[in-house]
Amino acid sequence: MPHSLFDKHRATLDAAVDAIRCRGYWAAYSEMPSPKVYGETAMDDGKRAFDGYLGQQFALEQPGQTGWTGSERSPYGFALHVNYPLCDAQALIAAALKAMNGWQKMGAEGRTGICLEILERLNKKSFELAHAVMMTTGQGWMMAFQAGAPHAQDRALEAVAYAWREQSFVPNEVTWEKPQGKNPPLRMKKHFKIVGRGVALVIGCGTFPTWNTYPGLFAALATGNPVIVKPHPNAILPVAMTVRIIREVLTENGIDANLVSLAAYDDPQATRELAQHASVRSIDFTGSNAFGDWLIANCRQAQVYAELAGVNNIVIDSTDAYKAMLRNLAFTLSLYSGQMCTTSQALFVPAAGIETDAGHKSFDDLAGDLAGAIDALLGKPEVALAVLGAVQSEDTLRRIETASSGSLGRVIRATKQIEHPDFPDAQVRTPVLLASESDDPAWRLECFGPVSFLVRVADTATAIALSERIVSEHGALTVGVYSTSAATIEAMTEATWRSKVALSINLTGAVFVNQSSAFSDYHGTGGNPAANASYADAAFVANRFRVVQRRYHL
Amino acid sequence: MPHSLFDKHRATLDAAVDAIRCRGYWAAYSEMPSPKVYGETAMDDGKRAFDGYLGQQFALEQPGQTGWTGSERSPYGFALHVNYPLCDAQALIAAALKAMNGWQKMGAEGRTGICLEILERLNKKSFELAHAVMMTTGQGWMMAFQAGAPHAQDRALEAVAYAWREQSFVPNEVTWEKPQGKNPPLRMKKHFKIVGRGVALVIGCGTFPTWNTYPGLFAALATGNPVIVKPHPNAILPVAMTVRIIREVLTENGIDANLVSLAAYDDPQATRELAQHASVRSIDFTGSNAFGDWLIANCRQAQVYAELAGVNNIVIDSTDAYKAMLRNLAFTLSLYSGQMCTTSQALFVPAAGIETDAGHKSFDDLAGDLAGAIDALLGKPEVALAVLGAVQSEDTLRRIETASSGSLGRVIRATKQIEHPDFPDAQVRTPVLLASESDDPAWRLECFGPVSFLVRVADTATAIALSERIVSEHGALTVGVYSTSAATIEAMTEATWRSKVALSINLTGAVFVNQSSAFSDYHGTGGNPAANASYADAAFVANRFRVVQRRYHL
Repeated sequence: MPHSLFDKHRATLDAAVDAIRCRGYWAAYSEMPSPKVYGETAMDDGKRAFDGYLGQQFALEQPGQTGWTGSERSPYGFALHVNYPLCDAQALIAAALKAMNGWQKMGAEGRTGICLEILERLNKKSFELAHAVMMTTGQGWMMAFQAGAPHAQDRALEAVAYAWREQSFVPNEVTWEKPQGKNPPLRMKKHFKIVGRGVALVIGCGTFPTWNTYPGLFAALATGNPVIVKPHPNAILPVAMTVRIIREVLTENGIDANLVSLAAYDDPQATRELAQHASVRSIDFTGSNAFGDWLIANCRQAQVYAELAGVNNIVIDSTDAYKAMLRNLAFTLSLYSGQMCTTSQALFVPAAGIETDAGHKSFDDLAGDLAGAIDALLGKPEVALAVLGAVQSEDTLRRIETASSGSLGRVIRATKQIEHPDFPDAQVRTPVLLASESDDPAWRLECFGPVSFLVRVADTATAIALSERIVSEHGALTVGVYSTSAATIEAMTEATWRSKVALSINLTGAVFVNQSSAFSDYHGTGGNPAANASYADAAFVANRFRVVQRRYHL
Repeated sequence: MPHSLFDKHRATLDAAVDAIRCRGYWAAYSEMPSPKVYGETAMDDGKRAFDGYLGQQFALEQPGQTGWTGSERSPYGFALHVNYPLCDAQALIAAALKAMNGWQKMGAEGRTGICLEILERLNKKSFELAHAVMMTTGQGWMMAFQAGAPHAQDRALEAVAYAWREQSFVPNEVTWEKPQGKNPPLRMKKHFKIVGRGVALVIGCGTFPTWNTYPGLFAALATGNPVIVKPHPNAILPVAMTVRIIREVLTENGIDANLVSLAAYDDPQATRELAQHASVRSIDFTGSNAFGDWLIANCRQAQVYAELAGVNNIVIDSTDAYKAMLRNLAFTLSLYSGQMCTTSQALFVPAAGIETDAGHKSFDDLAGDLAGAIDALLGKPEVALAVLGAVQSEDTLRRIETASSGSLGRVIRATKQIEHPDFPDAQVRTPVLLASESDDPAWRLECFGPVSFLVRVADTATAIALSERIVSEHGALTVGVYSTSAATIEAMTEATWRSKVALSINLTGAVFVNQSSAFSDYHGTGGNPAANASYADAAFVANRFRVVQRRYHL
């Protein structure tokens, strides 16, 4: 009974709606992989469940299956040997449209209740999802658990909360009664039906297969749309597990499971054809500018929500906590080997150096000290392995190599390969730090991975102007500023209003510029080239459904 | 003081937000041109004010003025001889961006208060606006007053109410406090700034220069954007009056008047260049598919909200109120000579005829009776002139001529020219009614103006399927159904959920399928080719602003 699920999860939903209104700290799903929360055997159960998938066919009983596909290779150095159903796009779409009707009839309450039940079910599978995320993306265990499971689930819930807020504002019906002076009023009955746009296509990325996929998936689902998920070819398993759990919960609640399906296409042409299908009415995409721009230009039948490349940057003007700043920056540049869409790529430093609580620091002092801070952070191999994870793609390995050659800038800190005791073939690399001049072209292009540029600029005002221009032209999800001057912080703040990017000011503690907290931080503004939408806000959900009215005299 | 205006209009705003939640009958501005509401001298004052504009320069003191323009010719048969400033687009944009800063700083409350003050001021000028609308569009007086003034103001207020609801949901700031077990919590201050997307371009149409312009104008303005309004070259005056009033209210409240400006370009190339300017970040457009499609394809730097052509239609299956149905249809087809984006163009009738309370009616019976009902409605010249108004464009006159030739279908009812006693050169025409077969191509293309097609279809099921297909492929803002069968109404209802179009059922009284009531009816669904947005809903406003956050440790 769908409405019983709505009632069951009502407290969670209300708290989530409250959270998106206040945007203070809140989370529905525990980020600590604690036995107290997830059960004493959760860790082992999750590992065993993950191992159980390896070398097997991952059956989903989807329509139009023509074969099996899958060639995931873990950044930790082994092949998963899992095979996934390969299904004809037209069959998936036809089945999705067929399933849409029952989903629409369920209404916003019914859909919201089922979405929340799905999330609870996903949460219970957090450990096996975390293993799947870790092994497909190369993330370290703790990040794979947190970002891959509870944080992704919270982002999904945030989208569901926004979707609920918008849908629940639309009345089901009303009696319209217009006074006519001394005559009887005109009276009509009006009904307002929420209908989804049509089939939603959600295209996942290789680094955050759940965190970046769930918001679009759940926003589309909650608003009445069937969803086809096209995972990255090297990060299928966490998505397939998610799709299976969704299909199970749908079936249990009398909804045709084909409402949500997996399209594990390896062939880009198959994805292009699916994206251009007339019935596909929304596309959520995280990935390269090349494909994102192609989607926007060529899939005009659909709303496209795209998160693309950017050049995140930080202006370093001055600080009263030099060591803490260096530690904070070192962690940001190192975490998951810089393979986050929020990792800082360019650090702007005035040519004359900066004033700090440890005295004046020249550009080269700062460069050396930052390199040292990274060395210190990654000094213990077990810490280094946990923080860095493994390098997700060959392309990133090549970028590390190119950066190391010195062709992109002077090498301040060279990369090092670290051996992983458990995974001898894992590709683990420490960050490359380069020194550049402000007119170098290299740092202005996204260089995804553990490659950062310390960019020498004339002065702080130039740095702020450069940050604004880079964000406006190339996009960014995050910028930062370190300064003891209120005027500088004010100028940087106003620059970010114009370039439309989130600003972190003087981060020296346990929060990092690359972190985005569900229910509080808007991930992306949707106002610069790095992303045309934000996770999650009203704009992320409001255009995913339409209101169709009917009216008649009473 | 902006916040004092917010307080002044708070009750109106609250009532408007309440209205968009309930969507029953509500209006802020009186639709009756009554001396009791608008003042004893309002009628004369309005006429005198309108006359005062004729033959004059309409100064606006905008930047970059290079000359004067304007060649409006009334459908009532005279030239207005009003000249408007012609301003360089780059100058308007630069001034708009400069003005944006102060507007943004005012915050959502300040902006909303000023928008409501503007609307109150516009309402007080309703009579002169109505004259300007009547004389530029050819609408009859009552429609020009209602749709041109209070109804347009209500649509604007509706957009402001949605904009307020979305903006006021975003908190200004929050203290984020994340528990850390036994350690002190992580604490951060976060600020959330609402920033407009950038310059909004609003492109008006020739038939409803205020009603179709105000929603986009006020949605963009309320959400923090500067607005440049490009009126239709033959309906500049009501827009110029609106822009002048807005600029006056802005100036009175310390906001740079160049936040809102008029770009009265006659040259389509000038409009194209303005629309493609990198700083133009949203475009609202009502008009032809040719230009609308061009905007969507070529102005990808902007969000485009477009209302385009459609083929509105009605399925006539059966009725228990035959005469009332005919009267209702006759009025719909005649009102403003069918020059409404909501006028029905195709009426689907089963080949075997229909059952009615007046007995069985064959296709030809119905055709003759509908023609007769139009004759009866327009029998008295003073009624005919009031209902029909004048034909707005040469193109529409040509379409009437083509239809009258019989080349688009068999002529059931021929058009007649009516002399206007006050305006001897007015172009007044009664509707053309044509009979077509379902496979005729002519009725499937929008034929804007007083030309309607009675289309013979195999049966009711075919009619419903045809309606769905036409809406899905060609678009529609309105469809209707007449039936005494609950199953037929249900089937039609479900068809409109798939094709995403508003449905009017068995209209036989004083509400017409072409009428859309602010705060209650969603004008357009945004889900079929006739419009990619609705006036007004959350999706119409939510993507016009972005949230830019900053955060720092506490």
